[in-house]
Amino acid sequence: MKKIKDAQTQIFIGEDVLLNLDEYLSNAVVVADKNSMQYTLPLLPRLSGLEVIRIDGNERSKNIDTVIFLWKEFERLQLDRNAVVICVGGGVVCDVVGFAAATYKRGIRFVNIPTTLLAMVDASVGGKTAIDLDGIKNVAGVFARPDRVFIYPPFIKTLPHEQILSGIAEIIKMYAVTKRKFSIENFDVSNNNFTEHIIFAVREKARIVSHDFKEHGKRKILNFGHTAGHAVEAFLLSQNKEITHGECVMWGMVAELFLSVRLLGFPHSEYEKFLSFAVRHYKPLHIKTEDVPAVINYMRSDKKNYQNKIMPVLLRCYGCPVWDCGMIDYALLTNILPDSILLSS
Amino acid sequence: MKKIKDAQTQIFIGEDVLLNLDEYLSNAVVVADKNSMQYTLPLLPRLSGLEVIRIDGNERSKNIDTVIFLWKEFERLQLDRNAVVICVGGGVVCDVVGFAAATYKRGIRFVNIPTTLLAMVDASVGGKTAIDLDGIKNVAGVFARPDRVFIYPPFIKTLPHEQILSGIAEIIKMYAVTKRKFSIENFDVSNNNFTEHIIFAVREKARIVSHDFKEHGKRKILNFGHTAGHAVEAFLLSQNKEITHGECVMWGMVAELFLSVRLLGFPHSEYEKFLSFAVRHYKPLHIKTEDVPAVINYMRSDKKNYQNKIMPVLLRCYGCPVWDCGMIDYALLTNILPDSILLSS
Repeated sequence: MKKIKDAQTQIFIGEDVLLNLDEYLSNAVVVADKNSMQYTLPLLPRLSGLEVIRIDGNERSKNIDTVIFLWKEFERLQLDRNAVVICVGGGVVCDVVGFAAATYKRGIRFVNIPTTLLAMVDASVGGKTAIDLDGIKNVAGVFARPDRVFIYPPFIKTLPHEQILSGIAEIIKMYAVTKRKFSIENFDVSNNNFTEHIIFAVREKARIVSHDFKEHGKRKILNFGHTAGHAVEAFLLSQNKEITHGECVMWGMVAELFLSVRLLGFPHSEYEKFLSFAVRHYKPLHIKTEDVPAVINYMRSDKKNYQNKIMPVLLRCYGCPVWDCGMIDYALLTNILPDSILLSS
Repeated sequence: MKKIKDAQTQIFIGEDVLLNLDEYLSNAVVVADKNSMQYTLPLLPRLSGLEVIRIDGNERSKNIDTVIFLWKEFERLQLDRNAVVICVGGGVVCDVVGFAAATYKRGIRFVNIPTTLLAMVDASVGGKTAIDLDGIKNVAGVFARPDRVFIYPPFIKTLPHEQILSGIAEIIKMYAVTKRKFSIENFDVSNNNFTEHIIFAVREKARIVSHDFKEHGKRKILNFGHTAGHAVEAFLLSQNKEITHGECVMWGMVAELFLSVRLLGFPHSEYEKFLSFAVRHYKPLHIKTEDVPAVINYMRSDKKNYQNKIMPVLLRCYGCPVWDCGMIDYALLTNILPDSILLSS
């Protein structure tokens, strides 16, 4: 078992991590989505006997209605301030349950048991909780760390391939922003043992987050691929198209690397390899030329924006991210970005 | 001008405080209730030119719908993470606007300009934001400090007498929990200059809060009068009766002092003087004997409860508060509390 620490959060990774759950089992309640109740809870006999609250686990349920439902359930169960919410699910579940727990009675403790590769390497760690509003991603939320995160890699075996690809996108993001010697062409998506990648991604994220929890500075690099990615995700959701977060991030990274080549001299050959990896492994997004202004419009709600400028994280090279560069206004984006977004089509 | 500091919050009290607003006037939006727009904003010419969002300022508006409305307004105005929300209003407005700002984009800055005596000495300071849910007080919220608090005592002159009495209850609470030599019989409610009391209450609150922001320990003493007071308030609101927060806190203190006499030996003579002060200055609440179980039931949602025990703050003497005493279960309360609650009728 690997143990990583981010401030007061302890993150356990390995096949024996669930033994450490026991101290949380008195005065606790479980929140899980339907899939987790079906596939994951049966693997967690320690949680049997606890009250289980079921919520939907898709992006459309990441809203205030789900949070209100959870507050009412917590009230019905008379959870006091010392209670613990055990969150079992993917990224959406971690985001929304974390927000509900962090705002119930001005904050009660919560513990994450991520069930998808994406949630293991991203949402479960770092304390960003959030909900969407009117189709805009993560409009409301708080920074609130889970008490513990238990990452049990065997859950990955229960996942469909597109869910694994979704997690891989966030793993690749972490290599791209931290490792100068990253070679995307050597990344093996068919490898069935992701534990090493998980440990790398979680350790790097915990290191960055522990220095800049509230994202005033360097933590912003974790948003690489997300300015364009979130906009694409919000646009496609508004069209009722099913899409994973990781797919959007992958194509978001392609778009932002395209900008990096144009604006910061990111090596064109590396960009080509990245694009070819995306094309080989990820479904195209099918965004039409006439949709591009709508996608760019979603970027106006990006949380990193400042004084009407969109501030994506760009790369000079792998491991050399640049944030707050503030050089990109909407007009410029409207000139450059269409080509990069259409690359995903 | 008096300047008090609570961690990163600077609190300014005096007739010249509004000069210090200027640094907040770029990238800011004002949120105010109807009364504040009518009576207070005209006294704040510095804020003219800023966008003003209007919300209702009564306890029934302290709910998630108001928060969602504010999030959408912030989105419409494209507030970025560096924006500031200037909150102008009473306690409800401070509570709900603080919550909306502290959760918008995972938290943007807010500044409080309290317009009531109650908000000046309590809600505007200390960083407790909250909303009610289904009639239960402060079910959801976060601890989030305002950036600055500007307390301008002349606003008090615009207030009706019952609003001043409401603030006096919180001032008396602060004397009762911190001053061994407090003499309630010498408290002059007709005094028109409350600046000295405001400075006392704010300084004491800032001192306590700076040592225990998240209320794990001593901060709980600020809840004196609030376990019974919040229950009475929630019950009367459910009956559509108009009541100020301070009236409820005053009668809540009477009830909890009654318990303090019975359980901790608080001097009976002091209790009698306190009761006589309440009777002389505050309207009776008109709670009937048959309503008492419903009032006690509301105490089951008190945030200080632990393992099904109600944990009111009691006093051994003035300035000697006791918290987490854990001696009171529902059955005992049902025996003792009716008499104390009915004292207010």
